[in-house]
Amino acid sequence: MKAIGVFDSGVGGLTVVKELIRQLPFEDIIYFGDTARVPYGIKSKETVIRFSIENILFLLKQEVKLICVACNTVSSVALPVIKSHFRVPIVGVISPGVREAVYATQNKRIGVIGTKGTIKSRTYESEIKQLDSKVKVTAVACPLFVPFVEEGWLSGSTVMEVARHYLKPLKNAGVDTVILGCTHYPLLKPLIKEVMGKNVTLIDSAKQVAIEVKKILSVEGELNNARRGKCSFYVSDNPEWFSGLAERFLGQAVKNIRKVNNV
Amino acid sequence: MKAIGVFDSGVGGLTVVKELIRQLPFEDIIYFGDTARVPYGIKSKETVIRFSIENILFLLKQEVKLICVACNTVSSVALPVIKSHFRVPIVGVISPGVREAVYATQNKRIGVIGTKGTIKSRTYESEIKQLDSKVKVTAVACPLFVPFVEEGWLSGSTVMEVARHYLKPLKNAGVDTVILGCTHYPLLKPLIKEVMGKNVTLIDSAKQVAIEVKKILSVEGELNNARRGKCSFYVSDNPEWFSGLAERFLGQAVKNIRKVNNV
Repeated sequence: MKAIGVFDSGVGGLTVVKELIRQLPFEDIIYFGDTARVPYGIKSKETVIRFSIENILFLLKQEVKLICVACNTVSSVALPVIKSHFRVPIVGVISPGVREAVYATQNKRIGVIGTKGTIKSRTYESEIKQLDSKVKVTAVACPLFVPFVEEGWLSGSTVMEVARHYLKPLKNAGVDTVILGCTHYPLLKPLIKEVMGKNVTLIDSAKQVAIEVKKILSVEGELNNARRGKCSFYVSDNPEWFSGLAERFLGQAVKNIRKVNNV
Repeated sequence: MKAIGVFDSGVGGLTVVKELIRQLPFEDIIYFGDTARVPYGIKSKETVIRFSIENILFLLKQEVKLICVACNTVSSVALPVIKSHFRVPIVGVISPGVREAVYATQNKRIGVIGTKGTIKSRTYESEIKQLDSKVKVTAVACPLFVPFVEEGWLSGSTVMEVARHYLKPLKNAGVDTVILGCTHYPLLKPLIKEVMGKNVTLIDSAKQVAIEVKKILSVEGELNNARRGKCSFYVSDNPEWFSGLAERFLGQAVKNIRKVNNV
């Protein structure tokens, strides 16, 4: 049986894998983290597209039946190009989060946080406007969040101060819904909730992504029901670093990480 | 006339270029920043060596007469290998800083701060011990310093709190000398000075690196005295990002940054 392929620039995509495992426990998953070139968030569109194509070609060699782009930067800047290049179904993380956010907002004010690349692309804004042109979007890049998460500084006064700084424009805009537009940010949920207030809904697109993956596989008759699925993990560098961080993102230990040269 | 080649994973190496320009104003400098794959600090030795070789091959195509590795991570983990591969003289940033620190310390307690890769390599420790086996070295990785510097958060309570956290072991060890083992850290000098106290000497290796470069070129009869030198800048990605940060590191605006594919 063919697996679902998932890729990310590094370790963040494991928050999506966690949800795929929960909703699709019978599927095999092959994860690729491009840890030799992580992070993508500050890199140009052209470079992110080139790296993504190389990552997809690696997953295709593993004969995957669907590819999930578990990275908001790639989904924001590269999705139309890579979808047009490849025949395999490709699911990004933007549209599922947008749909949930537009459904959730009551006051039609949505906040978006993400990497510089994601925010600069204005992809969230344009997808939200396509669904509901009346929604007011406030989008802010939070470049220090990823390093804080990777260092395990998920709470405490320092990261709280950083969060207050970044989220100020969202509070000022009175948003009632915030899209966590980076796969690292779910780990900062308690902190972001504390800053934004308990009445603000935080949208973590992983759940909706898994629902979309399930729908596509179901339509194509590609769902597996035979046996419990297994996960394989590949990285382009530093399996130790990946494995040290992985449990925090996946909620379980990750073993047998294989290092490969994808370029 | 041939130029001096300088490379770094990104923009940090410009603090070394600044000093080269000051001490060797008649030399042409060709700088390469591997911004497509920045940062190197969390990556494996094997990958850092591979990237460094590619960067050097790019500089050799520009016919440089000497290569300055303006990156502590590369100098820590890759210098012996790349020196053994290439005929061109290669100068790293570790030994010059070590010599200055061993000369400066009075109480024979030296602190070293750097990226995870630099600290994990224990290169500073072993080079210090080679010069003076009685010196006690306290080495600490400060992974959040680079993102803070690149975001321009050089002062204020947040970064101060981060600095206090990282530098605590150095204070506890009673070091009287601290090697700033990353080309980004000179921008945090005032902050680090405030945390460590005014009697602690901060060693920024750029000055000693420029002295060493001058010495080698002089011995080889390769010094230029003909006319004011010029600098050329190449990056593997995102010239806009590079140019936005460059002035902070170089002390002057950087124009005409060329994007090249070095791999």
